[in-house]
Amino acid sequence: MVDILAKKRDGKVLSDEEIRFLVEGYTAGSIPDYQMSAFLMTVYFQGMTAKETAALTMAMVESGDTIDLKDINGVKVDKHSTGGVGDTTTLILAPLVAALGIPVAKMSGRGLGHTGGTIDKLESIPGFHVEISEQKFVELVNQNKIAVVGQSGNLTPADKKIYSLRDVTATVNSIPLIASSIMSKKIAAGADAIVLDVKVGSGAFMKNIADAKALAETMVDIGNQVGRKTSAIISDMNQPLGFAIGNTLEMKEAIETLQGKGPEDLQELCLVLASKMVLLAGGMETEAKARERLIEVIENGKALEAFKQFLKAQGGDPTVVDDFDKLAEAKYQIKVKTVEHGFVSEIIADEIGMAAMMLGAGRETKESKIDLSVGVVLHKKIGDHIEKGNIIATIHSNKEDVSEVVNRIQNAYRFSGEKPEDVPLIHGYF
Amino acid sequence: MVDILAKKRDGKVLSDEEIRFLVEGYTAGSIPDYQMSAFLMTVYFQGMTAKETAALTMAMVESGDTIDLKDINGVKVDKHSTGGVGDTTTLILAPLVAALGIPVAKMSGRGLGHTGGTIDKLESIPGFHVEISEQKFVELVNQNKIAVVGQSGNLTPADKKIYSLRDVTATVNSIPLIASSIMSKKIAAGADAIVLDVKVGSGAFMKNIADAKALAETMVDIGNQVGRKTSAIISDMNQPLGFAIGNTLEMKEAIETLQGKGPEDLQELCLVLASKMVLLAGGMETEAKARERLIEVIENGKALEAFKQFLKAQGGDPTVVDDFDKLAEAKYQIKVKTVEHGFVSEIIADEIGMAAMMLGAGRETKESKIDLSVGVVLHKKIGDHIEKGNIIATIHSNKEDVSEVVNRIQNAYRFSGEKPEDVPLIHGYF
Repeated sequence: MVDILAKKRDGKVLSDEEIRFLVEGYTAGSIPDYQMSAFLMTVYFQGMTAKETAALTMAMVESGDTIDLKDINGVKVDKHSTGGVGDTTTLILAPLVAALGIPVAKMSGRGLGHTGGTIDKLESIPGFHVEISEQKFVELVNQNKIAVVGQSGNLTPADKKIYSLRDVTATVNSIPLIASSIMSKKIAAGADAIVLDVKVGSGAFMKNIADAKALAETMVDIGNQVGRKTSAIISDMNQPLGFAIGNTLEMKEAIETLQGKGPEDLQELCLVLASKMVLLAGGMETEAKARERLIEVIENGKALEAFKQFLKAQGGDPTVVDDFDKLAEAKYQIKVKTVEHGFVSEIIADEIGMAAMMLGAGRETKESKIDLSVGVVLHKKIGDHIEKGNIIATIHSNKEDVSEVVNRIQNAYRFSGEKPEDVPLIHGYF
Repeated sequence: MVDILAKKRDGKVLSDEEIRFLVEGYTAGSIPDYQMSAFLMTVYFQGMTAKETAALTMAMVESGDTIDLKDINGVKVDKHSTGGVGDTTTLILAPLVAALGIPVAKMSGRGLGHTGGTIDKLESIPGFHVEISEQKFVELVNQNKIAVVGQSGNLTPADKKIYSLRDVTATVNSIPLIASSIMSKKIAAGADAIVLDVKVGSGAFMKNIADAKALAETMVDIGNQVGRKTSAIISDMNQPLGFAIGNTLEMKEAIETLQGKGPEDLQELCLVLASKMVLLAGGMETEAKARERLIEVIENGKALEAFKQFLKAQGGDPTVVDDFDKLAEAKYQIKVKTVEHGFVSEIIADEIGMAAMMLGAGRETKESKIDLSVGVVLHKKIGDHIEKGNIIATIHSNKEDVSEVVNRIQNAYRFSGEKPEDVPLIHGYF
């Protein structure tokens, strides 16, 4: 182990066997934390080649169970976002792609901190649940082309153990370590192909385009090295996506988007990501063609139909789609007025996410109970002009005193005297 | 702690308080190994400023006991060598400097591995021992200007703990970590001033002059930062110093040097180091003047007299100095002949040290018992011309079969067809 450390430290390239030895040893406990943390810091400084990163990814995949989706017909494409606020894309993408006959076998998680989780959002539909057997899951995907289950099995235990260590040793922020962590989880969950949405901006983990680009390229490289077709985009997170933040609120926005009347940015991002998913699944020759067909299934209601079928198959009430009154509503709706004026230049997405979490929409710890009905709906986004006293957001709350939340939202909005330049939604394609 | 790690990782400078927090926390166990190892690897890559290195040194000094030598009159100068083979300088320097009235209050250790220890060498004198009380130690230094004790007390526990961790995390080889480790031990042992002998060459830890220079400069910087006058030299270790390797054998060579008939390189190194010690102690205006006086005390026998007095004061038989027959002698003397010919271009000192250890002169582990009488005496050094079959060394052994040792010595000698250029004994002064 000391030799491996010294080798990496001196800028030499580790073999697949050395990386496997490291990951297996660490998972088994024969390599102690202090050697692994020294290794992680070495990687922070020396980086890893594409081949090393791929070997690390696969060693983490092989450290635990893997999900076998071979009984599902077709190419299983998964999507991963590096984490944003108000990112409802999965709820929309899944039925959208399924409506074109492409299987979506989605393993999802719950939210933690200010970032929402797909399962929490789905559970805002009365009756919906993810407690289905693996056999039922496979059946549903083959039948409806779409099903969602919670994470089960001991997937990538090496990644979990390494991640905990990175968290306390200032080694989180390393591109090969981030990339291999994400990719190992997707591969272990059975993905044949992967579409990645790398967020960039003040509300994202990657604060600048150069870092986001490096992460996107590294993950695409891993995919290519290990035989998984992989595409990536870099999308903007200098403000929350869409308007809604909070589980039920985001569900409504997702349904509206499937009905063709969602927020422009959210719809556009879904079309871009869905087109890539369709392309990787081999369902279409070009992205442009895919996009055309995706717009078609929104317009002719087939996407929404797929969504209803999916909800019903997992115990949910599909009629909520046509009647939002059947969804839980928070007791109080409180308007947030601005105390400043000017053009909105930025909305710190993390702060909005934290505001929603304070209302009970997110979990502070894994054990926290969340309130599905609460959250924040923004009314103004970057480029909008605002006078003092204008309403910028509505708080949906079950408690009356929300003064701290109001402050947080007000502070999240940044203004400038001049109209800011348009920020593109998509910063790059890989 | 994670913030400190991230700060150092990002190339920022840590405050004295942050470094103290780190060292105190690690010594107390509140900072775990895995965070310290990540920190050490960060230092490996980012280095440390002179001020940071000094703060680390003092935090390690303060982690445990310190020796108080204030009852000893005069400036206490200590010497430290970064470790060589056949390095008998301490045995010679101590009486040499003491003969000029400068106090030598020496705390020494035993040897480990292929590097000898001063106490082991001294114990080759019948009756000599280092088990004296602190009070007696102080008395002896005030009276004779020279005494040697074993390491006692809990000195620099932080350094011990950090060193063990460095050993298993590939972070030994970092200049600020090496420098602070050495300096903390000397300062904790009560030195007012320190002369450093940084070895360079194939048989030294520092393999090239640039690294040796960096280490020497860093240690001198630490000394200046913490108010200890410090000088350093870089001396050659492309071959063992002198001819003898092994405890009794080195003792004989040391006595011969004090008599003015020792090996040229050993005598020269002793004069250079002793001159610096005298200068730092404030006993002389210039090194040249100091050197003159040192040669004088060798020639007039005062240095040897100081040595005899010192031996006697600690139970040793001073008459051995005039009668080497009173020293232990190994049963067998075996000549090593060369199988090659040419000019000696290098003698790998480590290999000679290992050869001596195999004979029993050194400890493989801390618990090993050693044989004081055994070792190796070289007959040829760099630049000497040798014909096949010439004797290059004599093995002093208590076992008859020394074939492995012979091989080791033969392999340690490197030859070239042309006479190698003269390698200077001293490569630099700081």
